[in-house]
Amino acid sequence: MPHYTAAHAQAGLKSKLPPLERWPNPYPGYETTLEVPEFTSVCPKTGLPDFGFLRIRYQPKRWCVELKSLKYYVNGYRNLGIFQENAVNRILNDFVKAVRPVWAEVTGEFNARGGIKTVAAARYPKRGHR
Amino acid sequence: MPHYTAAHAQAGLKSKLPPLERWPNPYPGYETTLEVPEFTSVCPKTGLPDFGFLRIRYQPKRWCVELKSLKYYVNGYRNLGIFQENAVNRILNDFVKAVRPVWAEVTGEFNARGGIKTVAAARYPKRGHR
Amino acid sequence: MPHYTAAHAQAGLKSKLPPLERWPNPYPGYETTLEVPEFTSVCPKTGLPDFGFLRIRYQPKRWCVELKSLKYYVNGYRNLGIFQENAVNRILNDFVKAVRPVWAEVTGEFNARGGIKTVAAARYPKRGHR
Amino acid sequence: MPHYTAAHAQAGLKSKLPPLERWPNPYPGYETTLEVPEFTSVCPKTGLPDFGFLRIRYQPKRWCVELKSLKYYVNGYRNLGIFQENAVNRILNDFVKAVRPVWAEVTGEFNARGGIKTVAAARYPKRGHR
Amino acid sequence: MPHYTAAHAQAGLKSKLPPLERWPNPYPGYETTLEVPEFTSVCPKTGLPDFGFLRIRYQPKRWCVELKSLKYYVNGYRNLGIFQENAVNRILNDFVKAVRPVWAEVTGEFNARGGIKTVAAARYPKRGHR
Amino acid sequence: MPHYTAAHAQAGLKSKLPPLERWPNPYPGYETTLEVPEFTSVCPKTGLPDFGFLRIRYQPKRWCVELKSLKYYVNGYRNLGIFQENAVNRILNDFVKAVRPVWAEVTGEFNARGGIKTVAAARYPKRGHR
Amino acid sequence: MPHYTAAHAQAGLKSKLPPLERWPNPYPGYETTLEVPEFTSVCPKTGLPDFGFLRIRYQPKRWCVELKSLKYYVNGYRNLGIFQENAVNRILNDFVKAVRPVWAEVTGEFNARGGIKTVAAARYPKRGHR
Amino acid sequence: MPHYTAAHAQAGLKSKLPPLERWPNPYPGYETTLEVPEFTSVCPKTGLPDFGFLRIRYQPKRWCVELKSLKYYVNGYRNLGIFQENAVNRILNDFVKAVRPVWAEVTGEFNARGGIKTVAAARYPKRGHR
Amino acid sequence: MPHYTAAHAQAGLKSKLPPLERWPNPYPGYETTLEVPEFTSVCPKTGLPDFGFLRIRYQPKRWCVELKSLKYYVNGYRNLGIFQENAVNRILNDFVKAVRPVWAEVTGEFNARGGIKTVAAARYPKRGHR
Amino acid sequence: MPHYTAAHAQAGLKSKLPPLERWPNPYPGYETTLEVPEFTSVCPKTGLPDFGFLRIRYQPKRWCVELKSLKYYVNGYRNLGIFQENAVNRILNDFVKAVRPVWAEVTGEFNARGGIKTVAAARYPKRGHR
Repeated sequence: MPHYTAAHAQAGLKSKLPPLERWPNPYPGYETTLEVPEFTSVCPKTGLPDFGFLRIRYQPKRWCVELKSLKYYVNGYRNLGIFQENAVNRILNDFVKAVRPVWAEVTGEFNARGGIKTVAAARYPKRGHR
Repeated sequence: MPHYTAAHAQAGLKSKLPPLERWPNPYPGYETTLEVPEFTSVCPKTGLPDFGFLRIRYQPKRWCVELKSLKYYVNGYRNLGIFQENAVNRILNDFVKAVRPVWAEVTGEFNARGGIKTVAAARYPKRGHR
Repeated sequence: MPHYTAAHAQAGLKSKLPPLERWPNPYPGYETTLEVPEFTSVCPKTGLPDFGFLRIRYQPKRWCVELKSLKYYVNGYRNLGIFQENAVNRILNDFVKAVRPVWAEVTGEFNARGGIKTVAAARYPKRGHR
Repeated sequence: MPHYTAAHAQAGLKSKLPPLERWPNPYPGYETTLEVPEFTSVCPKTGLPDFGFLRIRYQPKRWCVELKSLKYYVNGYRNLGIFQENAVNRILNDFVKAVRPVWAEVTGEFNARGGIKTVAAARYPKRGHR
Repeated sequence: MPHYTAAHAQAGLKSKLPPLERWPNPYPGYETTLEVPEFTSVCPKTGLPDFGFLRIRYQPKRWCVELKSLKYYVNGYRNLGIFQENAVNRILNDFVKAVRPVWAEVTGEFNARGGIKTVAAARYPKRGHR
Repeated sequence: MPHYTAAHAQAGLKSKLPPLERWPNPYPGYETTLEVPEFTSVCPKTGLPDFGFLRIRYQPKRWCVELKSLKYYVNGYRNLGIFQENAVNRILNDFVKAVRPVWAEVTGEFNARGGIKTVAAARYPKRGHR
Repeated sequence: MPHYTAAHAQAGLKSKLPPLERWPNPYPGYETTLEVPEFTSVCPKTGLPDFGFLRIRYQPKRWCVELKSLKYYVNGYRNLGIFQENAVNRILNDFVKAVRPVWAEVTGEFNARGGIKTVAAARYPKRGHR
Repeated sequence: MPHYTAAHAQAGLKSKLPPLERWPNPYPGYETTLEVPEFTSVCPKTGLPDFGFLRIRYQPKRWCVELKSLKYYVNGYRNLGIFQENAVNRILNDFVKAVRPVWAEVTGEFNARGGIKTVAAARYPKRGHR
Repeated sequence: MPHYTAAHAQAGLKSKLPPLERWPNPYPGYETTLEVPEFTSVCPKTGLPDFGFLRIRYQPKRWCVELKSLKYYVNGYRNLGIFQENAVNRILNDFVKAVRPVWAEVTGEFNARGGIKTVAAARYPKRGHR
Repeated sequence: MPHYTAAHAQAGLKSKLPPLERWPNPYPGYETTLEVPEFTSVCPKTGLPDFGFLRIRYQPKRWCVELKSLKYYVNGYRNLGIFQENAVNRILNDFVKAVRPVWAEVTGEFNARGGIKTVAAARYPKRGHR
């Protein structure tokens, strides 16, 4: 019997989260990195908490993300059941939709579970084969 | 109600600051990095202080920046209300105007606020899409 | 008399190990790094244990590796006689067969033996000459 | 009134220093890095000492630098008034003249003055615009 | 009077050392790094010992180096008079002759002498100008 | 107006939490340290999450704490409103009641809030004035 | 002529600062450490800013310090001219008066000035000769 | 239902292990610390491996422990089911019996399980209450 | 023939140095640590420079040391021939005479010479046998 | 068959080594620490080299050790067969005989052999039971 079900792989992908706000960027053409060491969510399989360190890098175009709304958005994952890799990808998608950057990257480093540590990194727009 | 106003996004962009001086460079064609760990400014939204670590890298052409004037220039932000990302971009613009380098980069690593740490990096001349 | 035999070089390459499972990836196009600090196997020459730190990086296509099965798979090396370099290469091959990634890399950093530390790194698909 | 004079910018550029010696390189085509953590000179403006960490990287052609002569050469800066950036550039020029390498780089990391740390890096032959 | 003689520059280049052995590589196309923190030799000028950290990276073709023979080979330098840069280059040459890799690199980081630390790095096959 | 109320200072002190279990200690007279890097609770004033690193040291008498029950007990704070200092003291009291150690210490290092980091340390039995 | 005047040594000792608040401690007999990495004040001699890292350790009796009021109190030094050692001692005195702890210690580590770093540590009640 | 049984708490306490040997100490009155970073055993409850770092400190009287026999003794735990705290205590007892030191301490730092890391420290002869 | 003469052991003990100044201490009973990473002097035997890190700890009574005068005092060793251990002891004696502390300690960590690093620590008043 | 013989335990205890010299101490009553990171000797059982980091701490009475003679003395162990613990004890005895300190300590941290690292620490005069 496998260790997962299809429901686990879809958990949390569509749940409602607090909105990401933005402010108008007066200096187009630079880069920002946001480090969020206090990410936590819930494993949809075991119900136990996951902990991670998020890093969001982006080049703002017309907008910068508003930090207080980012704090509430990230806090929205606290009791959400979602796989670690899926959380990273959803955060990237929500960020791109709200802030419309030239490019963006989201990396999540998660604390070890079962002796194995996971780091997931997603990027917009997608790059081709390395 | 959003967390910001247009006035916040423009605060501090035009305020007068001490001038950056320069000395004649006898060896064109090398690079200099200046690390300034004691940057502090004020958040225009909350009135509370921000703290950051600046790093200025540049390739001098005819001029090198004079360090004592840089110290007073940076100290000019101490009671200035300005967003962190805007401070980094303004410092780059003021530096380029005063020193006329071949190229220059300014990076600001700011202490976490609301559990989120911001790093902003601007460059002259602008590079294209990565 | 040389220090090895052909049997040593082939030991453990075909032994049966617990299967690697997978779950369907809803977000193609990102990267995952899995760190496994608790790898241990047995030297086929001396019968003494080896200890290593594995790092698996890959870009999932249709599947992600299931972590619990990876834990049992890695644990399967605990009493297996196999050279360190061969373990790294076999893990890569087994991983690629089970998970069908766009690309994958396996790195093993092994504790020093005889005062010498070995790090082996294999990649799929193979790259040309550097 | 500016903080410098033209004399400061030229100080120490022509002063006599102990010679750099060399030995014949039997293996052309490799790289050497020399780390010199005990560089000290004098600020021509204030008369106070500067302290720095030099790093010299080069690819020897027919000659390698002799280390004892390098020690005496570096010690020659101990009571010399010279700007930090100028010291780095002069060391590169003197090194290239004596050792005739394929290429060479000199980096100087200097202890902070006025809360600002300077790192200067020069290279032979000069590279174009990054 | 210079600090060296031609004899110093040639010392140890031809001395006999224990042979490097090899075992057949079943997985062509990966990389191995071997870290040897306990290298010691003798300075041919002063007769005093040198200490260094060797790092050997290579891509095995048909053969992998046998570690026990490498340990004895390295130990062969213990009472050999040879310049640090020459030791690194000779190790690379001996390694390539015995193991026939696709490529190989040898780096030696040596403890400071006279306040100056030397790092030498050689590579097979030689690369062109950087 | 002060920043707190009496209700904040009492929040979470009596809430029900999962029980701590124990197993019989065959070797009286030694010490154990348990590090729990993933503690999180909620600030009763702001409703925002707190994050901390717990360290529990004790000398078992007849019983050792059972680790799985400790994991569930700690996880019970995830959605509990309680001041950081109060959480540390309550954990000590609950631990002593369940495990009956010769002595015990609980230390909590909490992530900075408002630029200030709190570390609280409680001990059973209480010590006199330092 | 000496480098100081009596006025410098008394500067800032009596200036008004925001009040320190407190909340009732339900668990007497433990210790708290508060780390405040963002202290800044002004040198009364040069008018230039000082930067420091404060650490406040205390054993609460009936009261704990309220953190938000501590943040505003520390921020009150931002434009105050006061010697570093005096700031540490005044903070201890103000803290003891407001919070009435069993004991308290204040340590300030200040960034180097003139190449010299100062750390000052004061304690209530005073201890005898070490 | 509790998470353990009495059998788990007794597992591995009496199993046969390779003997510890000793050599005669010519210099009574000093201390030795032995660090063993490669300890591994098996959890008697889950059958999964545990990994730890052992540190043995002792003052030899008439005998010193022979290191090769210690290596084989430690390796004897590789497939033994035993709780981490019990392993530390058993190693101390076996060591004291074989080597007869003036005093000895054994500390085991074990990799986290369920997000909790355990460190156990036992000492011969037992000390009184701290 | 021994490596030293009596003159070496006495060199620099009586040479004139810039005076240490002081300011009146308004808060008796605390401790100060001064870190001076840029100490340099000259070896009286070889004429080559020594480099060290000084740490001065003291409890001020009526006076605190004035930092600018300390900077010039330390700089007075720059071209003084004196053994490292003697420099540490002389600095302690000069400091105690000028500042009249309750107690004081001077520690000097010197860069390695001949592969050996020296740390010397002197204290006023002298303590008895450890 | 045991792993050692009585001859191994006595090897190197009486071999002749270069003499330790001394210079007259003008400042009785302080402490010196000498760090010697480049100790190497030979294992009398295997003939293979050992590597270690020595630390010598002492309180000079009438004499200080002369560093150049210490360098040659330590180098005398390079081809000497002696157990690690015995080397530490012999160095202490030779040091005390030559320098006549108030007290002295010698610590040797040796690189791991067979996965086990040894640290030995001896002291003059001997202390009683801890």
